[in-house]
Amino acid sequence: MNFDVNLKLFDRTAHNPSFREITGSMSSAKEELRDYCIPVNPYFPTESMMSSYKHNLDQILKYYPAHSYDTSAIVANLFNLKEEHVVLANGSTELITWIDHLFVRESILTPIPTFGRWTDQPLETGKKVHTIQRLEEKSFRLSPKEIIEATKKSKSRALALCNPNNPTGAIFSRDEVIEIIEGLAELEIIIIDESFIDFSSEENIPSVADIVHKYHNAIVLKSLGKNFGLHGVRMGYAVANTDLAEKLQHYLPRWNVNGIAEAVIRDIPNHIEEYELSRIRVIKERESFFQKLRSITQIKVFPSNANFVFIKIPDFIDGRKFRDHLITNYGLIIRECGNKVGSSCQFIRVAIRPQNDADILVKALRSSLNFFDKEVVHDSRMDTWSA
Amino acid sequence: MNFDVNLKLFDRTAHNPSFREITGSMSSAKEELRDYCIPVNPYFPTESMMSSYKHNLDQILKYYPAHSYDTSAIVANLFNLKEEHVVLANGSTELITWIDHLFVRESILTPIPTFGRWTDQPLETGKKVHTIQRLEEKSFRLSPKEIIEATKKSKSRALALCNPNNPTGAIFSRDEVIEIIEGLAELEIIIIDESFIDFSSEENIPSVADIVHKYHNAIVLKSLGKNFGLHGVRMGYAVANTDLAEKLQHYLPRWNVNGIAEAVIRDIPNHIEEYELSRIRVIKERESFFQKLRSITQIKVFPSNANFVFIKIPDFIDGRKFRDHLITNYGLIIRECGNKVGSSCQFIRVAIRPQNDADILVKALRSSLNFFDKEVVHDSRMDTWSA
Repeated sequence: MNFDVNLKLFDRTAHNPSFREITGSMSSAKEELRDYCIPVNPYFPTESMMSSYKHNLDQILKYYPAHSYDTSAIVANLFNLKEEHVVLANGSTELITWIDHLFVRESILTPIPTFGRWTDQPLETGKKVHTIQRLEEKSFRLSPKEIIEATKKSKSRALALCNPNNPTGAIFSRDEVIEIIEGLAELEIIIIDESFIDFSSEENIPSVADIVHKYHNAIVLKSLGKNFGLHGVRMGYAVANTDLAEKLQHYLPRWNVNGIAEAVIRDIPNHIEEYELSRIRVIKERESFFQKLRSITQIKVFPSNANFVFIKIPDFIDGRKFRDHLITNYGLIIRECGNKVGSSCQFIRVAIRPQNDADILVKALRSSLNFFDKEVVHDSRMDTWSA
Repeated sequence: MNFDVNLKLFDRTAHNPSFREITGSMSSAKEELRDYCIPVNPYFPTESMMSSYKHNLDQILKYYPAHSYDTSAIVANLFNLKEEHVVLANGSTELITWIDHLFVRESILTPIPTFGRWTDQPLETGKKVHTIQRLEEKSFRLSPKEIIEATKKSKSRALALCNPNNPTGAIFSRDEVIEIIEGLAELEIIIIDESFIDFSSEENIPSVADIVHKYHNAIVLKSLGKNFGLHGVRMGYAVANTDLAEKLQHYLPRWNVNGIAEAVIRDIPNHIEEYELSRIRVIKERESFFQKLRSITQIKVFPSNANFVFIKIPDFIDGRKFRDHLITNYGLIIRECGNKVGSSCQFIRVAIRPQNDADILVKALRSSLNFFDKEVVHDSRMDTWSA
């Protein structure tokens, strides 16, 4: 065992511990941990952008940010949206929480597996959560017809859809999303969570943010931290018709957007080209990473339209043990998906990383799979292999 | 006119525009604006603390913060509170919003003038707001008896009390707060907003945070940004008995505390002595500033137990014009309190600043008061003096 990470950290919540907690649990930081759990954009912001935030940090942190109205106007402008359709928040989680409070009444339907908050948030506030299982044999894809019929059958008045889906990477086309929205006009709320959509394709991104205001009941969510590689900042936004947007804005806490988020958002319009390059680079690396993963015979790799890849490991390996093995022997942190509703510990999610990091992971995956293979051959009843 | 600030910025909201908006509205930044509006602790964090945040900024911003449970344990430990009594949030405003949602039913009583969110938040969610006027002739002080009787008479089941009060700086002793809480045991919720209490006195700070958990209906709020001089970071916490704290924690959005806030909170335990020095320095400078202000005969200065001072300007001067005059002629930004319920534009609030800045303000106040005096003598009907 080369990395003495406190593995108990992983037992606690529906989500992985933070990278800082993991590194902090090591008695010495002799070797570098590599994180493939959080799908961070590794190419953005640029070094010069980070330098300018450092340079202005005193002012950014010492003074109050503006009201989020003002900052959301910048976001609207950036994405060619109307100011009155955009609501800015302290990360997409704040929006999920308030949307659940304001617009989800008795129940919600969501395809699973999905981002944990879409199942846990409504459950925590006493609502019923209806689910449709995304199936491995269909690469976790669902048709608009399946979504519409399941929603009608469940009698749920709310639908939440991650597009692309987290953790599977499966995607609906723009036409499919429109078909779903139009097929469920009687619902009170339809949420399209487009947090990872910028990494779906180089061109013709299937977002419906530009037309969502035409529907009385639809709302698009997006996490800015994910796109811009700044998960610690907490920034996200919602797009909807004026009524829905105004209601959401009315209830959100004032000054919910912190000073760093404001500074980043004000800065982004000057760096759109660099962002676009970073986005395309991630997509290209996903394709190359996908091919390399495909060459590992023991695993199954699913097509992904996000900046992560969903992988099935062999049935005889427990995903938690596999995760722990990768951490303690190689210092590589992956997301084991056994604690996601509709997934199991046979599934792992790995983030797209620069080529060198991707190659290190591919190599470690091969070695680990061989290690577990041998252990099983040696004595399949024994449980003594985990370092 | 030396400072071409867009004064229309001040017309828009219940609060002053942000410092960045004000500076951003100037066509050129030839001269330095000085802010006396935001009561920032000028002596904290130290330069070496800020350097370390800059040094670690990539990691802080790129990775998700931990769940706020973990970070709130650090806050609890720091202030000798029990972990299960502490709830961390995205600034005290997030707490005010959720407390209003979860615990304030039909109505609330709050003494006025007060922090705007304590009147506006319940109004925005359709509740009735009962008020008791803090009177100038009593230096804005109220007795526990007055609070208790007014609350009972109003039949309100909720009470919000800023201690010390913002914007007046008036304070209740610890015994008085306990008397109020114990006198109103039938209420559903009593909120003591102690956001400025660290600047109340060098010793024997009248906080009730250590005993608030003994009461079924009491909750203490505190803004960490105000103490630590980091308003842009957004961090605050609530203290209450386990039931209240758990309920609040349950409803707050996950990952509501951003990466910078987490980093600062993790760092604070190593800098408690420096914080203590900064706090005492602010208190000493308030006393010296207070004496200097007292020497200006045209204004009335009220005793303050916060890091700002509340001032009454002569009746014949409109506070908005006075504020604009100070900005455009001297580049000094003050808080004119005409848009606070229970105040008027005869009142201004100025933050405690380092001695040199304080002296600059005192001098500018003198000159401006003389300027308005002369204008009035010259032609009191004319309105041509504002640059």
